[in-house]
Amino acid sequence: MERDFMAGKQEVVHTQDHETLCCHYSFARRMSRTPKSFIREILKVTENPGIISFAGGLPNPDLIEVGGIAEAAAAVLRDDGRTALQYSTTEGYLPLRRFIADRYKKRLDLDVSPDEILITSGSQQSLDLIGKILIDPGDRVAIERPGYLGAIQVFSLYEPVFLPVELRPEGPDLFAFKTALEGDTVKIFYGIPNSQNPSGITYSEERRKECAEILSGTRTIAVEDDAYGELQFSGSSYPPFKKYLPDQTILTGSFSKILAPGMRLGWVCAPPAVMEQLVVAKQASDLHTNYLSQRIASRYLSETDLDAHIRTIRAAYKEQQNCMIAAMEAEMPEGVTWTNPEGGMFIWVTLPAGCSSMDIFSDALKEQVAVLPGIPFYVDGGGKDTLRLNFSNAHAGQIIVGIRRLSRVIRSRIE
Amino acid sequence: MERDFMAGKQEVVHTQDHETLCCHYSFARRMSRTPKSFIREILKVTENPGIISFAGGLPNPDLIEVGGIAEAAAAVLRDDGRTALQYSTTEGYLPLRRFIADRYKKRLDLDVSPDEILITSGSQQSLDLIGKILIDPGDRVAIERPGYLGAIQVFSLYEPVFLPVELRPEGPDLFAFKTALEGDTVKIFYGIPNSQNPSGITYSEERRKECAEILSGTRTIAVEDDAYGELQFSGSSYPPFKKYLPDQTILTGSFSKILAPGMRLGWVCAPPAVMEQLVVAKQASDLHTNYLSQRIASRYLSETDLDAHIRTIRAAYKEQQNCMIAAMEAEMPEGVTWTNPEGGMFIWVTLPAGCSSMDIFSDALKEQVAVLPGIPFYVDGGGKDTLRLNFSNAHAGQIIVGIRRLSRVIRSRIE
Repeated sequence: MERDFMAGKQEVVHTQDHETLCCHYSFARRMSRTPKSFIREILKVTENPGIISFAGGLPNPDLIEVGGIAEAAAAVLRDDGRTALQYSTTEGYLPLRRFIADRYKKRLDLDVSPDEILITSGSQQSLDLIGKILIDPGDRVAIERPGYLGAIQVFSLYEPVFLPVELRPEGPDLFAFKTALEGDTVKIFYGIPNSQNPSGITYSEERRKECAEILSGTRTIAVEDDAYGELQFSGSSYPPFKKYLPDQTILTGSFSKILAPGMRLGWVCAPPAVMEQLVVAKQASDLHTNYLSQRIASRYLSETDLDAHIRTIRAAYKEQQNCMIAAMEAEMPEGVTWTNPEGGMFIWVTLPAGCSSMDIFSDALKEQVAVLPGIPFYVDGGGKDTLRLNFSNAHAGQIIVGIRRLSRVIRSRIE
Repeated sequence: MERDFMAGKQEVVHTQDHETLCCHYSFARRMSRTPKSFIREILKVTENPGIISFAGGLPNPDLIEVGGIAEAAAAVLRDDGRTALQYSTTEGYLPLRRFIADRYKKRLDLDVSPDEILITSGSQQSLDLIGKILIDPGDRVAIERPGYLGAIQVFSLYEPVFLPVELRPEGPDLFAFKTALEGDTVKIFYGIPNSQNPSGITYSEERRKECAEILSGTRTIAVEDDAYGELQFSGSSYPPFKKYLPDQTILTGSFSKILAPGMRLGWVCAPPAVMEQLVVAKQASDLHTNYLSQRIASRYLSETDLDAHIRTIRAAYKEQQNCMIAAMEAEMPEGVTWTNPEGGMFIWVTLPAGCSSMDIFSDALKEQVAVLPGIPFYVDGGGKDTLRLNFSNAHAGQIIVGIRRLSRVIRSRIE
């Protein structure tokens, strides 16, 4: 179960020959363990207009409230421009941290102080800071299988040993979870309980409790990535790990999916002793998060009905997902299966045994459709028959045409 | 010469007892080596209104062109809001990278391609990425003595051994520089050749050549931090290390001092093979730099006369520095000496032997004046009789009153 991460990665990430390229330079060891983001490499290929892309993870741009953000920007720069453009505190803009704390209380009945919240340059930076303060080389990091590629990538910088824990429809496989945590040697369990990336799986309430019970009493810290909690189509969420294990959970969140990704605003919510270390790491990493963006976001949030805006996003994504699933039901050949997530932006596809997602990727690209092979989401070299499809960044027409072409491509490979 | 960095730091950085505080958590080893930024701790104390602060490193807020930036923000959000608020490329906005490359050509006759430039979340992040890709635990990092606190802090995360190289009025002490680089075991030499932080020293052209000759043929990479190159009062610069050693130099720059720090925009300019690793590290760290800010900055720069704006900043800073130096000449007791920098934002003060900068710091704070003891700029525990004074964020009246009080405090300690 415990395998070096790169073992399963080298056949996928076709970076140039390290030896040839870097003959003059001696890079840090951690770089040889950190894969170039496969998603970003693919996105480069698929940027050409004309390609229908299900490969990325972009929010629907039509749902970004450009007008409201522009008004907020104008107001901030008019009323307090000099301050908004100056250096600021590492922790982040207090009213924005208060907003996040209040929303946790309202949404999840979670009691956290604004002092337990640090504003970061997006959720990805939250993970970098967590890796920085917690992971020594060789430390054991348990992660969902399949697991979020961005987390695998950034944690790899800190040279852990990954322990993949199989995901089931209800959440982590309980036996695998227990086995991984046996002996209390795991530093972190990293998971996305709501509409997981890439699988779309939402942990059941029961499974959350069971996992929390297993974690309780260990020294393992639960890193709970909640990038998609606000995008549960039902509008409600099961209790977060943070609720069961307040002192043992680091909860991360993001404005990328509910406000705008280009503003690079996320946060990390952690117990005070952990927060103190996170702030040191944040200071060292980039002093503080873009203050102008923090001020614009805070102003925008104070003047908008965020709940209404999020309801609009949820309804749109639900419709986009329904459209994709209807198309798949109509077009996909026998033997292809997929998830029907309760929220988020992704559907996870399993191909018939023996069908290679890399082949499908290449064939589909020739048909002007981009998909993401599931392989980079596996730290142990599995997933060769899986695909992640993003539905949030394509219109209904594109979804229908794209799925038709993809289905044809898969059919021709399995027949 | 080679001493553990924390050795000289623990008496200064009064963080809470690590054992008491973190009993439940096992943090990564690197955190025990990373000092909390003394500057930021001091800034917290000195934030009270009424205090005259020479402690920080803030640009003069009156010189931030709020109006022009507001216009650029409005234009970007009006003309291309959806794109500006969406995810973007890791490397950064191409027109902004082109602007930087063109300006290097114009200012320094430096030939770099936009592909050799990566936009970062401020200069501090450039240093984090450089540390990430280059420094393994135990690697040797040569650094000016005194050296920039932010670099000491972020490189410490990667657990190097620091080799301090004494700074002289002309630049690094040549004998110390040669000695440090002997045997070709040094991974990085980190320096700020223009108006160094904290000393204000600008390397002479001769010393740059001499250092470059010593570096040439070694595997040591010169990390040339040029945060203040545009703020040389003369308006011109000696050739950068990058000119002498293009393949062996990583050059970093920042918009914080010429545009606005709150936008957190910096860059790193590196040879292609190094850039490839930097981009991987950047992807892992935060995907990409705030895209809205990049777009606003690019728009603003395309419509403003940056040279005229920078001339204004230079003239103002020169006047502020002259004012501080005149006040010091009039008020400081015998035995106190200081630098008269060719640019930048700081004056470096040496107290009479035996006079402790920590005492002066405490006494001055009682008189409502904040200064920065020089100790955290030393990786080897020296500098106990030094102070850094920032002049860019105080008006003439504050400078005169502040220096008068500071002089009184020093006088009372040495008499």
